[in-house]
Amino acid sequence: MHSENQRPDPGAAAAVRAADRAHVFHSWSAQAHIDPLPIAGGEGVHFWDYDGNRYLDFSSQFVNLNIGHAHPRVVEAIQRQAARLCTIAPHFANDQRSEAARLIAEHAPGDLNRVFFTNGGTESNEHAVRMARLVTGRPKVLSAYRSYHGATHTAMHLTGDPRRWPTDTGTAGVVRFFGPYPYRSAFHAETAEQECARALEHLEQVIQFEGPTTIAAVLIETIVGTNGILVPPDGYLPGVRAICDRYGILLVTDEVMTGFGRTGAWFGVDNWGVVPDLITFAKGVNSGYVPLGGVIISDRVAAEFADRPYPGGLTYSGHPLACAAAVATIRAMEDEGVVEHAAWLGEHVLGPRLRKMAESHPSVGEVRGLGAFWAVELVRDRRTREMLVPFAPTPAQAAPMNELAAACRRRGLWPFTHFNRVHVVPPCVISEQDAQRGLDILDEALEVADRYVEG
Amino acid sequence: MHSENQRPDPGAAAAVRAADRAHVFHSWSAQAHIDPLPIAGGEGVHFWDYDGNRYLDFSSQFVNLNIGHAHPRVVEAIQRQAARLCTIAPHFANDQRSEAARLIAEHAPGDLNRVFFTNGGTESNEHAVRMARLVTGRPKVLSAYRSYHGATHTAMHLTGDPRRWPTDTGTAGVVRFFGPYPYRSAFHAETAEQECARALEHLEQVIQFEGPTTIAAVLIETIVGTNGILVPPDGYLPGVRAICDRYGILLVTDEVMTGFGRTGAWFGVDNWGVVPDLITFAKGVNSGYVPLGGVIISDRVAAEFADRPYPGGLTYSGHPLACAAAVATIRAMEDEGVVEHAAWLGEHVLGPRLRKMAESHPSVGEVRGLGAFWAVELVRDRRTREMLVPFAPTPAQAAPMNELAAACRRRGLWPFTHFNRVHVVPPCVISEQDAQRGLDILDEALEVADRYVEG
Repeated sequence: MHSENQRPDPGAAAAVRAADRAHVFHSWSAQAHIDPLPIAGGEGVHFWDYDGNRYLDFSSQFVNLNIGHAHPRVVEAIQRQAARLCTIAPHFANDQRSEAARLIAEHAPGDLNRVFFTNGGTESNEHAVRMARLVTGRPKVLSAYRSYHGATHTAMHLTGDPRRWPTDTGTAGVVRFFGPYPYRSAFHAETAEQECARALEHLEQVIQFEGPTTIAAVLIETIVGTNGILVPPDGYLPGVRAICDRYGILLVTDEVMTGFGRTGAWFGVDNWGVVPDLITFAKGVNSGYVPLGGVIISDRVAAEFADRPYPGGLTYSGHPLACAAAVATIRAMEDEGVVEHAAWLGEHVLGPRLRKMAESHPSVGEVRGLGAFWAVELVRDRRTREMLVPFAPTPAQAAPMNELAAACRRRGLWPFTHFNRVHVVPPCVISEQDAQRGLDILDEALEVADRYVEG
Repeated sequence: MHSENQRPDPGAAAAVRAADRAHVFHSWSAQAHIDPLPIAGGEGVHFWDYDGNRYLDFSSQFVNLNIGHAHPRVVEAIQRQAARLCTIAPHFANDQRSEAARLIAEHAPGDLNRVFFTNGGTESNEHAVRMARLVTGRPKVLSAYRSYHGATHTAMHLTGDPRRWPTDTGTAGVVRFFGPYPYRSAFHAETAEQECARALEHLEQVIQFEGPTTIAAVLIETIVGTNGILVPPDGYLPGVRAICDRYGILLVTDEVMTGFGRTGAWFGVDNWGVVPDLITFAKGVNSGYVPLGGVIISDRVAAEFADRPYPGGLTYSGHPLACAAAVATIRAMEDEGVVEHAAWLGEHVLGPRLRKMAESHPSVGEVRGLGAFWAVELVRDRRTREMLVPFAPTPAQAAPMNELAAACRRRGLWPFTHFNRVHVVPPCVISEQDAQRGLDILDEALEVADRYVEG
């Protein structure tokens, strides 16, 4: 189908690279120290460069490509809508916008029945925080250390990883707390149950000392994503919900990464039957085929803006082309059982195989995850749990992980690495065979990490 | 070509409307007090609903549709790229991303040679401000009263119109100044020259009292857009550039609305030969067919991030589908002379005709603009210049403008109104004949405004 652009074409690669280096300013990078690989195309769980190299995508790009590249139904929906109506201002109604909102509400838990569309996850968190502040009349928002919520002002200040440091002015009304992380407990817990109880106690204590009446919202990733795929102990999210209710605080769950099938459920909160007040989403809603994000709003919060205007908006809110891609994506996911497949993968393929690797590789400290959302945490010493590379590593400190990633890529696997972790986050549609092939490669490549194990 | 979706279909309209009211949360609105019109399709300078009503678009939606709806070359480019590669993570290189950046840099003034892509104008301003603060090491940013810069935290606080009020915490490090507006001078000026000199003197005074060494950037719309299409006197922007240079302050021009042909030039600054340090853009870059925005970065600013990482990014930075739409849009604009056509329209059609209307309608206080970017400012009294409806009107106060807009719509013209102004901002590709037809309708409808003129 895509053979025409799978033929090697080094000349084209050179031209793409030259224009990139001359004119493209890249995210999160020292511009003189990068050499971005030109990508020619993709299909399903693979993508390829101009030199004849094909990669099995264990990253889903930035964990957005839940249905894989070039899904025929989504491509066709985009092509059809492109000819019909690409864009219309947000004050109109539009069939694709209406249907996308209806489908999203249908899959969202509880009374989360209304959708405010944005262009991505960052904006979604910005607007969710604004809604929570306006509804409660309170200024502060709580978010977790080890979290990522986006790169505009409020979103960046909500973030609890080092990407926040260069621009943190401390003026965004954000207070941070520690979430549960049994493998590296901030609470000296020895069991998951203890971790859960102590993390809830800690959260409640932060709320009490900050002043419950000053806090508009607790905003958390349902399962912490980039910062470690930290699956909370079973009682944690219900506990957070109860604490929020006790103090009249809104619970906002950031499902930008966990939403739309990634965890083997439509939303991460479904794994624990929790209904937040607001859910923010992006990525998986249309696998990123067209930029789209949004906030799913409970009836209670929406009612607050029945008579007073919501003070926020954007030119592309409910963009017809982006919404058409969402409609096609959600329907394809329904028809093809993508969410169920992701759950099955976690239970029968990814989980068992990764746990086996943990046994055979001394560098693996812990594996954890669910659905198509797994982390392999690498250590220099299983006893002390010293990280293979530290939190916020310098380029020199990051070398072992870069070697590991290179070893995967040489074998045709594109991995997602972050600090001392490999995240196994393939498209949710990956076949058992492709998943096993990728795991074979990872298994081999982990020998690179094993060499750093001390003693 | 689109006859299939131009046939009336009231049943479809009812379904779209019902799902919209049940599930779509709209921008800037009290949700119980809106009734969004379902739009079925669009082509060129027209769009239509499901009831057989066709509208001539004098709003370009939100002043983003510079090349009109369903431009065949852009539609085709989207369709082709959709099958090839919709999305790829920002750390790769991609032919559409490279080519879009190269084309944008080619049309940008001076040494603005690098592009950081975002999803829209709001994010672009967020990132431009971050770059300016990091490069200068200074905390404050100056922006103008009567301005709009977007709806995330920093972008909203940069905004100088009432949309800022509900969420202004005063913590964003933004200080506001008055820009030139000869018709309603903040400086008691009697001529444009006087207005220019006094506005520059005022800006310099604000800088001196705030402390030049505390100011990272002056961020201004090259020509203020939503807040009045305020074309600055000729010396103003060169004067602002000189003041910025004097104090080591970066000049950031927000060209989200003015960029890509709207003013009869590729960028608004080209009208005065000014080279800013950063330009923010969105809308016209691909007419909003796929959400896309960005910051165009001077060599000097880019060099600051050669060795230290730029601390910002987003999943869809340089989105291939969005960039493919930009490449096709820019090439179509070049080949079809769209920018030159917009300049011609302003000089030979819109300007002369609107000035004539100003003579015959007592409600018209002033008309101003250039290219396809014009404002008709309406007053109750030409002598006192009392606004037909006030700044930040209540719904009741806004009634005269709503009547005027309804009168236009009844006649098949979709106008853009804001406070006491009608903005005449059709797609830049509009033919003389369609422009004249729209102006005929506006001419008739203005009788509604004339009835409110006192005495």
